[in-house]
Amino acid sequence: MPKFKFPPRLPFRRVGIAGLGLIGGSLAKAFFPFGGLEISVFDSHQPTLEEAKKVRRFKRVVGDPDEFIGLDLDLAYLCLPVHRNVELIGKMGRARVPYAVTDAGSTKTATNEAALAAGLNFCGGHPIAGKEVAGFANSSKDLIPGCLYILAPDERFGKPQKELLGRLKAFHELLGCRIEILSPQEHDRIYSLVSHLPYLTASALAGAASRGGGSKVLSFAGTGFRDTTRVGASPPAKWVAVVLDNAANLSADLQSLIDFLAEIRALVQDRDGDALLELLEGVSAYRRSLPDKTGKKS
Amino acid sequence: MPKFKFPPRLPFRRVGIAGLGLIGGSLAKAFFPFGGLEISVFDSHQPTLEEAKKVRRFKRVVGDPDEFIGLDLDLAYLCLPVHRNVELIGKMGRARVPYAVTDAGSTKTATNEAALAAGLNFCGGHPIAGKEVAGFANSSKDLIPGCLYILAPDERFGKPQKELLGRLKAFHELLGCRIEILSPQEHDRIYSLVSHLPYLTASALAGAASRGGGSKVLSFAGTGFRDTTRVGASPPAKWVAVVLDNAANLSADLQSLIDFLAEIRALVQDRDGDALLELLEGVSAYRRSLPDKTGKKS
Repeated sequence: MPKFKFPPRLPFRRVGIAGLGLIGGSLAKAFFPFGGLEISVFDSHQPTLEEAKKVRRFKRVVGDPDEFIGLDLDLAYLCLPVHRNVELIGKMGRARVPYAVTDAGSTKTATNEAALAAGLNFCGGHPIAGKEVAGFANSSKDLIPGCLYILAPDERFGKPQKELLGRLKAFHELLGCRIEILSPQEHDRIYSLVSHLPYLTASALAGAASRGGGSKVLSFAGTGFRDTTRVGASPPAKWVAVVLDNAANLSADLQSLIDFLAEIRALVQDRDGDALLELLEGVSAYRRSLPDKTGKKS
Repeated sequence: MPKFKFPPRLPFRRVGIAGLGLIGGSLAKAFFPFGGLEISVFDSHQPTLEEAKKVRRFKRVVGDPDEFIGLDLDLAYLCLPVHRNVELIGKMGRARVPYAVTDAGSTKTATNEAALAAGLNFCGGHPIAGKEVAGFANSSKDLIPGCLYILAPDERFGKPQKELLGRLKAFHELLGCRIEILSPQEHDRIYSLVSHLPYLTASALAGAASRGGGSKVLSFAGTGFRDTTRVGASPPAKWVAVVLDNAANLSADLQSLIDFLAEIRALVQDRDGDALLELLEGVSAYRRSLPDKTGKKS
């Protein structure tokens, strides 16, 4: 956790979080210590609402989206799956909500377009933090603080967004996050390569092992298989929404990966050790240039 | 570390380790506490020999393979890259060495065939332990103890190998290793899927990221990219030898992975969320069935 003075200068005082899952729950828990910050929450899952009420730290706990939209807020923080964030943005547009809106989704283009169409004061965001488990029960006050936090403004929003961007930056810096600014399109291109493609790759590798060896081979696996397939254990529903939302980038990146594997396979079949070594030396050097700690994205 | 009585009943008293790298060095360090065990070592790398001499725990430190082969040993433990183990096995056959021989290579078929042809008393092995770094400097007394240890006998060796297998089993049980017995062919089929294919997959993913995004995207990567590509940072020279030695299995497994990725890509392009979810649910359940701790293989 970063050092900050209490009470900090809060860029937002009344915050509503829609979706009390891993990310929404972790954000709420990270913001609980901030005196003067009122957090309300919406979730449509009844057991989660019960859990949220037990915590006794939320200003309001609501199960109805229209009730959530009508709350007195400075900031609505959308932490639902992307397609449900988009639905809520549509409702918020029709209700002409007076507050600012951000989201924490893994893709930025669809939400951004919806918010533009809805005429909201919106700036998307993405905490690079996650686990291969989901839900409020797995959320933690330590997941978000210190992580890389992407803010993804779109210049078509104009001046109000610049002001919102500054406040969102200050808000997440209270959690010690490192802020990076990307356009929604840049964000989705980059995270296709460094997050969504790794998820599909880990899944495909586990799938190939399952088809080729079944459950028997798992008892022989070491940390290489374990690490390379780890994100493949994540709950798929969340990922499928992300993957479909980023389909154009992923389709190109999947083809690029398939081409790379086919290149390797041709060298393996030809027993061309020199060319294989040269190819893998380049890759190994690239991977070793990865900074030591860059975040906590699952 | 397991509990055992000192002095343990040693199945071998005079052990020669060829190749003082990560595995050879870690084996030596794990066996150092055993009183009555004499460990000699061969390496052709001069600085490694200097380091080995400084340790002052080896009976003999030799830089000449013929000198190593001529040592008075109960067991020669081959920890060089597979193709160099095969060369040494040829020399040992021509010298008609009287001692038993094992190896710690990542593939078992080539070494096994060479040892049969050389007429050695041989049984191959494979500690499922590793790191993405190499060399004696990175070896550790804690790498091997407790790991899964595969022994890979071939029935064509006949009765002497059964006796050797029992002694190798007892020897590694002194280190708390869990022993599994596989034929060399079964071993290579399984480890193509759970070790060699994960390495190539991690490498191909890092390669695709490098081609698609260059070094810029690395600063945005989180633990998903980090874990999925981790083994791709390993020194490629060691892996290329392993990959070529297991080329037939890997060629089939790479094709199976490419097919799985192409299937995913088709569903992504068609935006077929239901079929994608069904495919990934199966994979996720398979991956979650991986036992919690299975070894320490890199």
